[in-house]
Amino acid sequence: MLIIMRLDASRKEIDTVKEKISSFGFTPHEIPGVQRVAIGITGNKGKVDSENFLTLPGVVEVISVTKPFKLVSRDFKPESTIIDVGGASFGGEELNVIAGPCSVESRAQILEIAQIVKEAGARFLRGGAFKPRTSPYAFQGLKLEGLEYLKEAAETTGLKVVTEVKDTETLSLVAEHSDVLQIGARNMYNFSLLERVGELDKPVVLKRGLSATIEELLMAAEYILSKGNYKVILCERGIRTFETYTRNTLDLNAVPVIKKLSHLPIIVDPSHGTGAWDLVSPLALAAIVAGADGLMIEVHSHPEKAMSDGFQSLKPETFHRLMNRLKEISTIVGRRI
Amino acid sequence: MLIIMRLDASRKEIDTVKEKISSFGFTPHEIPGVQRVAIGITGNKGKVDSENFLTLPGVVEVISVTKPFKLVSRDFKPESTIIDVGGASFGGEELNVIAGPCSVESRAQILEIAQIVKEAGARFLRGGAFKPRTSPYAFQGLKLEGLEYLKEAAETTGLKVVTEVKDTETLSLVAEHSDVLQIGARNMYNFSLLERVGELDKPVVLKRGLSATIEELLMAAEYILSKGNYKVILCERGIRTFETYTRNTLDLNAVPVIKKLSHLPIIVDPSHGTGAWDLVSPLALAAIVAGADGLMIEVHSHPEKAMSDGFQSLKPETFHRLMNRLKEISTIVGRRI
Amino acid sequence: MLIIMRLDASRKEIDTVKEKISSFGFTPHEIPGVQRVAIGITGNKGKVDSENFLTLPGVVEVISVTKPFKLVSRDFKPESTIIDVGGASFGGEELNVIAGPCSVESRAQILEIAQIVKEAGARFLRGGAFKPRTSPYAFQGLKLEGLEYLKEAAETTGLKVVTEVKDTETLSLVAEHSDVLQIGARNMYNFSLLERVGELDKPVVLKRGLSATIEELLMAAEYILSKGNYKVILCERGIRTFETYTRNTLDLNAVPVIKKLSHLPIIVDPSHGTGAWDLVSPLALAAIVAGADGLMIEVHSHPEKAMSDGFQSLKPETFHRLMNRLKEISTIVGRRI
Amino acid sequence: MLIIMRLDASRKEIDTVKEKISSFGFTPHEIPGVQRVAIGITGNKGKVDSENFLTLPGVVEVISVTKPFKLVSRDFKPESTIIDVGGASFGGEELNVIAGPCSVESRAQILEIAQIVKEAGARFLRGGAFKPRTSPYAFQGLKLEGLEYLKEAAETTGLKVVTEVKDTETLSLVAEHSDVLQIGARNMYNFSLLERVGELDKPVVLKRGLSATIEELLMAAEYILSKGNYKVILCERGIRTFETYTRNTLDLNAVPVIKKLSHLPIIVDPSHGTGAWDLVSPLALAAIVAGADGLMIEVHSHPEKAMSDGFQSLKPETFHRLMNRLKEISTIVGRRI
Repeated sequence: MLIIMRLDASRKEIDTVKEKISSFGFTPHEIPGVQRVAIGITGNKGKVDSENFLTLPGVVEVISVTKPFKLVSRDFKPESTIIDVGGASFGGEELNVIAGPCSVESRAQILEIAQIVKEAGARFLRGGAFKPRTSPYAFQGLKLEGLEYLKEAAETTGLKVVTEVKDTETLSLVAEHSDVLQIGARNMYNFSLLERVGELDKPVVLKRGLSATIEELLMAAEYILSKGNYKVILCERGIRTFETYTRNTLDLNAVPVIKKLSHLPIIVDPSHGTGAWDLVSPLALAAIVAGADGLMIEVHSHPEKAMSDGFQSLKPETFHRLMNRLKEISTIVGRRI
Repeated sequence: MLIIMRLDASRKEIDTVKEKISSFGFTPHEIPGVQRVAIGITGNKGKVDSENFLTLPGVVEVISVTKPFKLVSRDFKPESTIIDVGGASFGGEELNVIAGPCSVESRAQILEIAQIVKEAGARFLRGGAFKPRTSPYAFQGLKLEGLEYLKEAAETTGLKVVTEVKDTETLSLVAEHSDVLQIGARNMYNFSLLERVGELDKPVVLKRGLSATIEELLMAAEYILSKGNYKVILCERGIRTFETYTRNTLDLNAVPVIKKLSHLPIIVDPSHGTGAWDLVSPLALAAIVAGADGLMIEVHSHPEKAMSDGFQSLKPETFHRLMNRLKEISTIVGRRI
Repeated sequence: MLIIMRLDASRKEIDTVKEKISSFGFTPHEIPGVQRVAIGITGNKGKVDSENFLTLPGVVEVISVTKPFKLVSRDFKPESTIIDVGGASFGGEELNVIAGPCSVESRAQILEIAQIVKEAGARFLRGGAFKPRTSPYAFQGLKLEGLEYLKEAAETTGLKVVTEVKDTETLSLVAEHSDVLQIGARNMYNFSLLERVGELDKPVVLKRGLSATIEELLMAAEYILSKGNYKVILCERGIRTFETYTRNTLDLNAVPVIKKLSHLPIIVDPSHGTGAWDLVSPLALAAIVAGADGLMIEVHSHPEKAMSDGFQSLKPETFHRLMNRLKEISTIVGRRI
Repeated sequence: MLIIMRLDASRKEIDTVKEKISSFGFTPHEIPGVQRVAIGITGNKGKVDSENFLTLPGVVEVISVTKPFKLVSRDFKPESTIIDVGGASFGGEELNVIAGPCSVESRAQILEIAQIVKEAGARFLRGGAFKPRTSPYAFQGLKLEGLEYLKEAAETTGLKVVTEVKDTETLSLVAEHSDVLQIGARNMYNFSLLERVGELDKPVVLKRGLSATIEELLMAAEYILSKGNYKVILCERGIRTFETYTRNTLDLNAVPVIKKLSHLPIIVDPSHGTGAWDLVSPLALAAIVAGADGLMIEVHSHPEKAMSDGFQSLKPETFHRLMNRLKEISTIVGRRI
């Protein structure tokens, strides 16, 4: 249930509504908007009687929510959420690109790639240190060592770090070494991890599960928001289909659908989404035109030697060309990079 | 198997190769390219011994084809095929838009919409007269009457007609009344229809089946080409996935994949592909940026009264705006509309 | 819409209702049941006013149908339909097995396999003469020659022939040479073929499409029934999933679901459903226990030499063993073979 | 890589091979079979040179494994693994049924249902105390309280407890209160949880993920075995397909496929697999005939009041009838219940 306050509602009126919600044993969520405040109610197991709130001063409307998600919904917060990460943002006019290797493989490797990423004009460096892998025998990342190299590479170049958190055990370690946490596709249904990340005050890139519907992705984000962390950046990264010429099927339909349903930023990862480096650029450009708020791109200085996902990584010069094309195309859609 | 001729191979050398192929009971397919001629062999049930051809004068190379498709393959014909329909083309620099209602509903309706389509700058009019429907009780189209209205609307406006052919029985009737035939998703595996259409000298829009892979789409096109009709325009129109917020999942990955695998033009239908009018424009623009050679868009003057697919049809003013956006974006990708 | 007649409704009362339906331009379908007659209405494009019929003598109830299928529905006809083919039946207590090679390859081959099938206790012989194939270059069947061999093999052994009809052009030819027509998975959406088969008085095995839902299968059957042919045997043959260890995923859930929704018999084809001969027997037995009314099994005397689908064909001795196991298990579920 | 020892290999020979493996920094896994010992090698990142081992005394053969899974493979251990849980077992001649409510809702509820389950002849009680739910606002289980009720119900009736573990934080708590751990479909890719469960000496039911392939399920089991816990019972519980008449599509093909690929027991959950109580019994019987080693069935004394999954739960009398049918059918397939 959503309670919409009058434009001129006072602080006291807002607090009174929140107290009333708490008195029923529910949790109030105040979401300040540009024009007016909305208050979400969670924790109720059934229907809440709207009469209880409609009579309070400052309340304009009480909306009974039928969609299963609430806090992530655009009904709840009509304006798009802009998530700022040390001066670079997702969800506003600005577009940002997160680039780097699938895995941090060595200090030299990540320092070299960070430089390339920086020079091409991206502001975020990606690189996995804790890798969830289908096989227990596959390379699982350099772990703490990888995090340290990543941080060093970021500090040297002024880039911000995005890296994956794999479990609750390593969460605080990963959080310390990064600017933005990433939750991978295989952990989208890991509700305990989502809740723990929801308790932090740190931006999170949440990737869509391998065969997850858009609603399930939004419900996973709802887990994080419901614990208080509103800084969630959704990420489309391809879904499983019957197609074999691509590793996954990047679903660009999800971009305008999510922009319609939710106020959260949505970025696109065409590297995992297609699994083939020569499909990355056309789909990256298409994603921006479809309305995406940013991109996540795999870049490697020596794709042929990469320990994972080499085939889908862009070489430095291809990445450079893509960044230039993105700048051109972003102005056409009223964005800037 | 493909036989690649020397750049300066003479007519006589080419004919000698073709005769040799015929002497084995196979069918030669000469594909003239900008630089050199290639000759495809079909009709062989097993492996053909390349030694038979390598020794002939004018032959450069004999390529054993491992992909199941041959004539549609870019290995077979490296340059993109440009299909001209009375001065408007698919596959070259020019982009074309096919627009109109899902079904022809009345004379007045199609005349009105043809005018709108024309004014917005499209050159092709679509409209179904024979409709394959999941339910035997659903509206199946105006049939011959619909074809006649469609033709009248096209003649009045100077547009070219694209309309669906549903079965071999009505094929000649539909062919007489149209400039381009359309084979719908549900008929992509209707091999007898594909073969019959392959015997005509008429452009065909071939839509991807509901859950078909890209390879299956190319194999369906191969059926048409193998009978001699090389004027096939492929059409991505969304595949079945688990997503419920969209009717289908428009697969834009298919665009660059098909451009890589095949020389045939590929267009995109975001109306059926998404099933929601407000997703059509962002995905239409994205399709062009991803490399599509054209679009198929549903337009209706009164979507709320449409006998089928009203929810996914654009209103005249929205279509007009989309055409203007397409003109802007096409220049960025080196195309023109 | 369904009109349910009183138990003791007279012939005259029934005819009066049917005339009234016709007078509205709709088509009445009389379905005689063990206890009472129901009359289905098709051909209406919108809602039919139930008041028009409730007042007629002999009418008990008028049911507004919300499911998209009508004539195939168990609401329409509560008792299971039993389809008799020259003394062998589908849908009753009796279970029947349709067995034979994927394709008729030669006179000797089909005569040999017919003998094996007969000796093992099956009563129906399958074998494709017109084969719809994904590739235009694949073996397409022996055509008329194949039909003639098939008929000879059946006459020699006393088996009944089940063979696939691929298109309307060859329909009458195939119908002449067979006891039961088969419509393959790729033709399930070929509505023109369904309608033409619906005009015949001949049993039809209708296979579920490659990614078709159960509702779509029932709608395809509805096309056939709506033209007057009520002798439709549905066939589950596996659907497309992400699984790669099996060619398709045989969906045994479909068996009890269809028994609940429809009065038509449902048989199962574990050969195409799994694509691996060693999975055929366990799933054939499971299908019967789940409630299937029969089976379609590929049998080949020399699977390693088969021109198509050899890997999924049972050898004679394996088929013999399976038939014996089926006899044992059928008694447990109150059926007989 | 697998090293196969001679039938009469001595303890000393076996230990020598294991020491050699360790000396390379790899991990040896000794798997005693009825006839001979095999030793698996894990921890190697690339190919291991077989020459190193072939020359050691007692070694018969060195098999290079191409399948991505090793320890779970039937190549590795040809005989079926039998997992004993206090006298009741999975994987041998005996069939066992795990039954109970989706969630533990109250002390009275679980005590009542445990009694019903016991009387019907099942030996395992299921019931969720920690529930992973798609929505953060849905009932998440009674947690510790639920575990205690469950344990009490089991002790009163002599049943063994199977309950889901949701995360590593609550793992030791859940392990203390249960005889068999369950890892749910949404946690199949939660590799950190799999590893931690692999460190325990406790049987685990591992459910197939929502759209997981059989290979991915086996790889998830491999994670558990690779940490030393070999007591894994695989569970087919339905996969996501396009079908809407069932909640999931129970994939019985998986049963014989897994029996062929792996030595681990495989059980089937037709309650989650179909999502409809009236499909549970036919598919439970079919599962046994297809070769399943047991079943997991939802039973509730008042399904209409259940806090989750009521629609798919069997009522006591239906469960009783099913257990009787299972006893009949199990003898036919050489099993006993």
